[in-house]
Amino acid sequence: MISMILSSLARQAAGFQATKTVASALSKQTTGLHSIGVQRSLPYRRSVSLFSTAADLSPEKKLELESQIKAKGDEIRVLKEGGADKAAVAPLVEELLALKGQLDPSILKPKKKQKQQQQQQQPKKQNQQQKQQQQDDAESDFITAREVDYSKWYNDVIRVTGLAENSPVRGCMVIKPWGMSLWDKVRTELDAKIQEHGAENAYFPLLIPKSFLSKEAEHVDGFAKECAVVTHHRLTAGKDGLIADPEAELEDPLIIRPTSETMIWYMFRKWINSHRDLPLKVNQWANVMRWEMRTRPFLRTAEFLWQEGHTAHATSEGALDDARTMMETYATLCEELLAMPVVRGVKSPSERFAGAEETFTIEALMQNGWALQSGTSHFLGQSFGKAFDVRFQDADGQEKDVWGTSWGVSTRLIGALIMTHSDDNGLVLPPPVAPVQVVIVPIPPKKNDEEGKIAMDKALDDMVDSLKAQGIRVKVDDRDYVRNGAKYFEWERKGVPLRIELGPRDLKNNVCIFKYRAGEGSDEKLTVDLEFAASTATEGLASMHKGLLEAAKARLDAGITEDVQYEEMKTALENDEASSYNGSGLYLVPWKCNAENEDKISAECKATIRCYPLDANEAKLYEGKKCFYSGEDATHMALFGRAF
Amino acid sequence: MISMILSSLARQAAGFQATKTVASALSKQTTGLHSIGVQRSLPYRRSVSLFSTAADLSPEKKLELESQIKAKGDEIRVLKEGGADKAAVAPLVEELLALKGQLDPSILKPKKKQKQQQQQQQPKKQNQQQKQQQQDDAESDFITAREVDYSKWYNDVIRVTGLAENSPVRGCMVIKPWGMSLWDKVRTELDAKIQEHGAENAYFPLLIPKSFLSKEAEHVDGFAKECAVVTHHRLTAGKDGLIADPEAELEDPLIIRPTSETMIWYMFRKWINSHRDLPLKVNQWANVMRWEMRTRPFLRTAEFLWQEGHTAHATSEGALDDARTMMETYATLCEELLAMPVVRGVKSPSERFAGAEETFTIEALMQNGWALQSGTSHFLGQSFGKAFDVRFQDADGQEKDVWGTSWGVSTRLIGALIMTHSDDNGLVLPPPVAPVQVVIVPIPPKKNDEEGKIAMDKALDDMVDSLKAQGIRVKVDDRDYVRNGAKYFEWERKGVPLRIELGPRDLKNNVCIFKYRAGEGSDEKLTVDLEFAASTATEGLASMHKGLLEAAKARLDAGITEDVQYEEMKTALENDEASSYNGSGLYLVPWKCNAENEDKISAECKATIRCYPLDANEAKLYEGKKCFYSGEDATHMALFGRAF
Repeated sequence: MISMILSSLARQAAGFQATKTVASALSKQTTGLHSIGVQRSLPYRRSVSLFSTAADLSPEKKLELESQIKAKGDEIRVLKEGGADKAAVAPLVEELLALKGQLDPSILKPKKKQKQQQQQQQPKKQNQQQKQQQQDDAESDFITAREVDYSKWYNDVIRVTGLAENSPVRGCMVIKPWGMSLWDKVRTELDAKIQEHGAENAYFPLLIPKSFLSKEAEHVDGFAKECAVVTHHRLTAGKDGLIADPEAELEDPLIIRPTSETMIWYMFRKWINSHRDLPLKVNQWANVMRWEMRTRPFLRTAEFLWQEGHTAHATSEGALDDARTMMETYATLCEELLAMPVVRGVKSPSERFAGAEETFTIEALMQNGWALQSGTSHFLGQSFGKAFDVRFQDADGQEKDVWGTSWGVSTRLIGALIMTHSDDNGLVLPPPVAPVQVVIVPIPPKKNDEEGKIAMDKALDDMVDSLKAQGIRVKVDDRDYVRNGAKYFEWERKGVPLRIELGPRDLKNNVCIFKYRAGEGSDEKLTVDLEFAASTATEGLASMHKGLLEAAKARLDAGITEDVQYEEMKTALENDEASSYNGSGLYLVPWKCNAENEDKISAECKATIRCYPLDANEAKLYEGKKCFYSGEDATHMALFGRAF
Repeated sequence: MISMILSSLARQAAGFQATKTVASALSKQTTGLHSIGVQRSLPYRRSVSLFSTAADLSPEKKLELESQIKAKGDEIRVLKEGGADKAAVAPLVEELLALKGQLDPSILKPKKKQKQQQQQQQPKKQNQQQKQQQQDDAESDFITAREVDYSKWYNDVIRVTGLAENSPVRGCMVIKPWGMSLWDKVRTELDAKIQEHGAENAYFPLLIPKSFLSKEAEHVDGFAKECAVVTHHRLTAGKDGLIADPEAELEDPLIIRPTSETMIWYMFRKWINSHRDLPLKVNQWANVMRWEMRTRPFLRTAEFLWQEGHTAHATSEGALDDARTMMETYATLCEELLAMPVVRGVKSPSERFAGAEETFTIEALMQNGWALQSGTSHFLGQSFGKAFDVRFQDADGQEKDVWGTSWGVSTRLIGALIMTHSDDNGLVLPPPVAPVQVVIVPIPPKKNDEEGKIAMDKALDDMVDSLKAQGIRVKVDDRDYVRNGAKYFEWERKGVPLRIELGPRDLKNNVCIFKYRAGEGSDEKLTVDLEFAASTATEGLASMHKGLLEAAKARLDAGITEDVQYEEMKTALENDEASSYNGSGLYLVPWKCNAENEDKISAECKATIRCYPLDANEAKLYEGKKCFYSGEDATHMALFGRAF
């Protein structure tokens, strides 16, 4: 057994050097200055030829500016870590901003003005400017501070940590390996819970006859406007290249699934005859497409990955219970895997899924005070059962309509994860979801110290063995062409929860150095006996997860304001932007359910009802209270807020 | 620990009754007569209204015929199990066929004639007849014997075991839970091998700009003719329902990926700068679409699931080695997981992937003597590197073009699995891939025997515990509304490798009954001490896998004819149909590589070069031999055959 592990380690170690992985290959591009200044000074041949119009700065000037920005950023970070408050750091942030402005003038423009200009005049030119800015961003190695521009910080984190990248197809992203491993982890954990729930995986077609959408009246309203439509099944040579072959036009166009209720209920009709066929629970892991006009990586993309569960039941109670149980499952997953607390609730009628009678939702609070809907579970009533004529013979011999649910979470969760824990230094990953939980950075012995090398190799092998034996995902970063500082910087950015440094001197003292990415003790290096390294790491990671979850829970609690009048909320929210860090948060208020008033509020201060929280409403906290907007008797406690 | 397992079992047992799974719900539809005759007699309300034109037989007459067919089938099976040879069984098969013909006259028509008719006259009417036949099939609970019609047997097995089903979208199938669990198993096992290979998972967009296809000249020829083209991004109300909104036409149509080389090499261009970025290896698990005109479930569908790996290398050798290694990985997977031996080889130039310099392939032999290409791995040379201008700076400072590979296996493998092992009784699944490896069918004690019930529950719990402790996937089928015989029949059909029966009398004797699905000892029931049940099962399953692989290897060896002249092969192959069981197989012959002759042979006897087998060619067995077709000096040993 030991020898198997050793040989597997040897293979792994060899593999790390011989077949470099994408993550490490890509990280080199993004760690830039700190480790591979030489590479950065290469002319950007490809980018230039591909996107033209690079900034007017010489590469040397750019490098110099980037150095200054880095230094200023470090200065600010040190101050913050030392406990400086916002006011004290503000002048430095201004200077930082000025430097960044030299590198990229567009960031100095007030966001709003820019937006108006864009809408009013010269949309094409603005478009080009935007493209150039995006391109500049795409090459930048820096993370904007959250206080400077939260939206930009979000995009920066995604870029520099190699989570995802824009693709040449509008609104579609490429999920890069580091991002994909996060989603794969969600998939593995959630899939097990879905199986436990009694649903089995299946796969239904990507394409759906367009007529299917029309079968459920609300459903078609919800999705027809954002469907990718397939009209031809062949390309042919036209005069300017390939065109859709006019002779291969489909009689009946197909749409790319925006969700699969229609296809699945069409099949349910064939599969359900008797009460013995119920409940019927299927799930699929799939890609779906909704042609969104404004997209943001992970949060809103034209194509995204998700799982969609669909169940059919003999009774209303059975379906309702299923929908609610899955909401609870999602909430538990968010806490256990992502250290992300959520508010459990139901949507107001106007925010329900198109075709649902009740939509359960989990809402998380992002660091900018906006909510992010992180998963939904729909009680469909008999809407799809009736639309697709799915009936069953009950034990009493009667034919009855079938009740349904559907529920899903998507790659959006990765966006929520980023905005729950990460900081100005990059990603912070809770240990359970981290692709690498511990990275070991060995400091190699001197060149001629053969004995030292042998001792180091053995110590590394032992450490990896003992960490793996505790079930920890561990990686040894022994690249010889990257400096230690650059390695620390890279893995910190990527959010690896624990770094262990091991040098020849440490080895002599039988110790190693621990540095946690976040939480208690993360501001100092800890010296740990080699003998206890694995057990200390196990405890430390568990405690880090607990700490992250508690901190996030505290933020969520503090981020919900109660006992507030409408005007107060309005003042606080109407100028709130996604780009502002530490925004005004959510509002839990007594509310008389009314779609028109909901629309008015949304128009006035862009706030929507995120949900009617289950706990507050089951405790009937609205009783005896007046609606904070209409003054009528309240029917619910509603959670209002801006949302992604 | 024990208590955890017990409570988990209790949950599972409760779950099995309370939340019935899809497999069990569906199986009821397919076990039909044997267990739920009452249900079968329900009028087929939905099917009738949906597809109209049901057969003219009354439901009572249909039931009677189905009974007779079942009885005849059983008779034949018993004879075969008793060792009767084909000739002895033939008259009974004729009678069976006649009975089936009464139920569905279309199966009596000679296939070829029907095909000609269809091509020559009244295509629409024939189409309707075909549809009706499909519909009749869709309701049939029977598996056609392989000797009667191998193609029909294949479709029957897929239908009655709930592997997949046609969808309302042309050429697209619904993969049902039993089929999906097979693919999920392939995914899990192969994904681990791919990670070991050093590739990391990522995800690239479903849609590809059509101009990308044109970048690689051969690639566009290979795929433009079967592309689904997205031309609009919205539906709107037309006079007869929804139409693609003319105002939402895309400036540049997009295609649904038939494969992702173009998109991935577009991204590689951004990610590769230096030799340190190489090799770069990514893999994605995804759906792809190729608009095939003739489709068959799993073997050839418009949409299918696959993994596609894409790698970039600094040297030709590096890329070639990568492509070959992955072919070997696929071959190993087929043997280890699917007990399916393959021939490793390279494709002749005309059969290569569009854009590849060399295509490695693994070819398996199906029971009808046809080959099935089960996985391919392409050495792309610098074709995509040059087409997408992907260059890198080498250690010597020189800019160089990048070398590439791509490799993939798809849901086709499930088709190969079915046609390698399964028999007239249904699926045979090698234990490593079986979703359920052991099904326990308890025979419940008498109604008032409370003591017996407690003992039975305990014995079941113990048995499940001990099987799970050995890592065996086990299921207890304690449905109280299905007779034991029907359960045996159902799990046998579904290919579960081992059934364990446990009754009150067995329990008193401290024994249980083993029945293997296939291989040595599968023709009798074995009595096994309860104490040794788990260890016996472990050994038995391992030995069953070994037996299946050996049998398949023997069939493959016997299925390859050598030392044959072209005319002999032609005579044997020209009338060979996919629907004939036990066809003439493959031919390994000396060959002078020549695309024109290849085309001629394909036209004359529909045989193609499946591959130039690596072993025969590395041993240079062609040396000193003349091409079996042209008589010129042979350059290769070629493996000819019909193929799916």
